[in-house]
Amino acid sequence: MAEPVTACLVIIGNEILSGRTQDTNLKHLALALNDLGVKLVHARVIPDEEKTIVETVNECRGLFNHVFTTGGIGPTHDDITADCIASAFQRKLVISQEIKEIIERREAPPEVMQTRMRMARIPEGATLIENPTGGPHGFQVENVFVLAGVPSVMQAMLSTITKERLGGGQPTHSLTLGAYLSEGQIGKKLGIIQENHPNIDLGSYPFYNADGYGTNLVMRGTDMTALKITFEEVRQMILSFGVEPIQD
Amino acid sequence: MAEPVTACLVIIGNEILSGRTQDTNLKHLALALNDLGVKLVHARVIPDEEKTIVETVNECRGLFNHVFTTGGIGPTHDDITADCIASAFQRKLVISQEIKEIIERREAPPEVMQTRMRMARIPEGATLIENPTGGPHGFQVENVFVLAGVPSVMQAMLSTITKERLGGGQPTHSLTLGAYLSEGQIGKKLGIIQENHPNIDLGSYPFYNADGYGTNLVMRGTDMTALKITFEEVRQMILSFGVEPIQD
Repeated sequence: MAEPVTACLVIIGNEILSGRTQDTNLKHLALALNDLGVKLVHARVIPDEEKTIVETVNECRGLFNHVFTTGGIGPTHDDITADCIASAFQRKLVISQEIKEIIERREAPPEVMQTRMRMARIPEGATLIENPTGGPHGFQVENVFVLAGVPSVMQAMLSTITKERLGGGQPTHSLTLGAYLSEGQIGKKLGIIQENHPNIDLGSYPFYNADGYGTNLVMRGTDMTALKITFEEVRQMILSFGVEPIQD
Repeated sequence: MAEPVTACLVIIGNEILSGRTQDTNLKHLALALNDLGVKLVHARVIPDEEKTIVETVNECRGLFNHVFTTGGIGPTHDDITADCIASAFQRKLVISQEIKEIIERREAPPEVMQTRMRMARIPEGATLIENPTGGPHGFQVENVFVLAGVPSVMQAMLSTITKERLGGGQPTHSLTLGAYLSEGQIGKKLGIIQENHPNIDLGSYPFYNADGYGTNLVMRGTDMTALKITFEEVRQMILSFGVEPIQD
């Protein structure tokens, strides 16, 4: 089996670390990447601090095929991501004429326009990432993709990135079976099934609802045949306890 | 001003990285730590892989005052956090008599009991973290606190950890003012206020609602006097645009 194409998400934002804002970009990125044949294998949440951002980006871009960043590309003093990416790649910051024109489309007094122009600054040689919301673009430098932090804008930008641009492989498929059995009851048999299918990622997640408590068994992998065989074994394992499997 | 007591969260869980589950533990931990006088300054999300867990824990426990982990302490094959923490500290895994007794309170057939006993294994010399839900305890080794991944259990465990146990400092306070002004409009003046108050963390977050779009300005810090002065300056700045500040 080919090695998966890996990705890392770097969430830049004091507002996440302070607990003020609930991040939802990680989940959205993970699901989108599954379809693009890229596996999210690591994520970090870091503060809006230049040294930390530069070091984190430089470390992660060496460890993973792709790095996505979210946050810090607005027009205020705490929006320093463009500066940090330029610094990480030892490139100059330049004004993107294309972004400048987008910003100028919305009229504003000179001082406001000047503040907004902060969003036109990109590292020299960066490729743009389109922004279907009509706002300023994101950008890509080598394997680092710089996206907005606001979820609707982040999602719009991400929707323009193709599988070809990421060199994605096989998409990851997922199958789920639930049962009103505890993890303690099925743990041993589940471990044996996992051992027999090393290419399938088999996770178990307890749940509680009005009917009692049970466990969801999630199988993930790129090989649909192996996935279906594992699914059948898990189904039989559940039936062996005299319990009906619950399908999504 | 005293250096803040720092913390890092390590979220162990394929289900977060695959996009199946939305993490909420980060936000809960961040808010709880604010009150305990500890600052969450870093978080990582990593897969259920031994090598990655061991290396991440060892790196992070050297970089931050405290490390919290969530996930991977249940009874199934993918619950390997206890093994990994023992390995990170080069300690043996031992059976905690106290956890064993808790597990034995709930009757079960021998095979189920045996699987459940996996949750009684802790690194030698670990201190327990109580679990008010009645399930097995979490544990602490030096500056690493190992919590459950299920949010209700994680929250229950965390509620038993005192400020004294963490050597926490001053709690962090937060004040917010909103205004129907864009980041572009206020960006420059906001930057000047931030420069004048380096001990206050001043963030700006755009919002959209039925009345239009605006920006929330969030001020955070441990020094209440400096916080109130900053708040008043932000309020005056908003008024200078002829706009009414919106208070939470």
